[in-house]
Amino acid sequence: MHIDIQFLPFSPDPSTLSRRTIVVIDVLRATSVIIHAISQGALEIIPVATVEEAFQLAKHFPQGTPLLGGERGSQKIKGFDLGNSPREYIAEKVKGKRVILTTTNGTKAFHSVSSGREVMAGSFFNIGAIGGRCLDLSQDLLIFPSGDEGRFSLEDTVCGGMLIDRILNKGKGLVSLTDASQSALILYQRFKENLVETFRLSTHGRDLIERGFEEDLAYCAQIDITDIIPTFRDGVIRI
Amino acid sequence: MHIDIQFLPFSPDPSTLSRRTIVVIDVLRATSVIIHAISQGALEIIPVATVEEAFQLAKHFPQGTPLLGGERGSQKIKGFDLGNSPREYIAEKVKGKRVILTTTNGTKAFHSVSSGREVMAGSFFNIGAIGGRCLDLSQDLLIFPSGDEGRFSLEDTVCGGMLIDRILNKGKGLVSLTDASQSALILYQRFKENLVETFRLSTHGRDLIERGFEEDLAYCAQIDITDIIPTFRDGVIRI
Repeated sequence: MHIDIQFLPFSPDPSTLSRRTIVVIDVLRATSVIIHAISQGALEIIPVATVEEAFQLAKHFPQGTPLLGGERGSQKIKGFDLGNSPREYIAEKVKGKRVILTTTNGTKAFHSVSSGREVMAGSFFNIGAIGGRCLDLSQDLLIFPSGDEGRFSLEDTVCGGMLIDRILNKGKGLVSLTDASQSALILYQRFKENLVETFRLSTHGRDLIERGFEEDLAYCAQIDITDIIPTFRDGVIRI
Repeated sequence: MHIDIQFLPFSPDPSTLSRRTIVVIDVLRATSVIIHAISQGALEIIPVATVEEAFQLAKHFPQGTPLLGGERGSQKIKGFDLGNSPREYIAEKVKGKRVILTTTNGTKAFHSVSSGREVMAGSFFNIGAIGGRCLDLSQDLLIFPSGDEGRFSLEDTVCGGMLIDRILNKGKGLVSLTDASQSALILYQRFKENLVETFRLSTHGRDLIERGFEEDLAYCAQIDITDIIPTFRDGVIRI
């Protein structure tokens, strides 16, 4: 298995994706939200790029049935049901519900890699399950950090490095790394004893603290709290 | 001073460059060649993108006066005077000469960032001098690794991390880092005791060993062998 990680979140050439497993990562906080919501019983998540698109799409369903979730500038959007903190996405709110989600980085990332053979949502929450699934699929892997408004994101890369570490521990000898995936692994090794430190050093983590979401950092640093693997297909994320 | 590093070598928006110092890095081997050649007395280096362009440009000078240097697939180009090993660029060959240089990654990189306020060539050879110059200029800094055929390059990033380390050691407190420059610094810290190990792990370093250029690795890992700062202006690199 060849493992690469794309450090900047532009759309890759679709022809390079069709034979690869893709893991989209937006630890702070879109993929953490998606995994958490589905683990709490949400029916499906529909990731959309814009707020306008979210409102338009909601009209196609019986009134009030889809929940609107997401953020702009890290804050809940006016007229939306939920923000972008995984702690909000609990069973009593989301069980059996469809969620239309729009965030600054993460929800766009899924559309950038939609040609992938299998496109999954990863975060620290489900890292072990994702690693196992990648090995089962036995295809080349592209890890796709969602970045921070087009820029490189430290915390997504460290999470990608942890995924590589898990795969190497189970599949050593069968795996080849690029300069980028090798570097993600080294960055993970630097922070593995203290993932919250990663968030405190990262631009987006510091931004979340400033905007009043410090509790989300420790929450999003939880490892292997679920085995759920949300998968993006035909525009929708489901198990 | 704000320090960023662009992990993938696409052309940045020119408007973001005009107020920044840019350091182009292609340790293996274009910027090592450029610094070495100028330290050995070469008059100037003209970096061009293609082999055809190199031959065409040579016609504008009296016959035989410019030297043609560079590589494709790491090997010297047919009809060229010099390849892409810094060990070839010694005084008896290059002193007082103009060199037209074309390489797979490095020479293109200079044109990608030509709108920079000051665009310099950096490698381990002149890392201390470059760090000092960046501090003297006191502008925001963009480090621009040339990459490996559009991909992330470990060795260029580690060299960028060393530049950041030098600047922090002299200018601490005045410097802010992005997630990317923070990560480059961590990668440098991982390899600083053994730069050749970086090359042996990197895709391009392994490729050079396979193609018979193993001696270039130890050669390009030499630190601070010159104070020369080659600067790219109006299409030409000079002191």
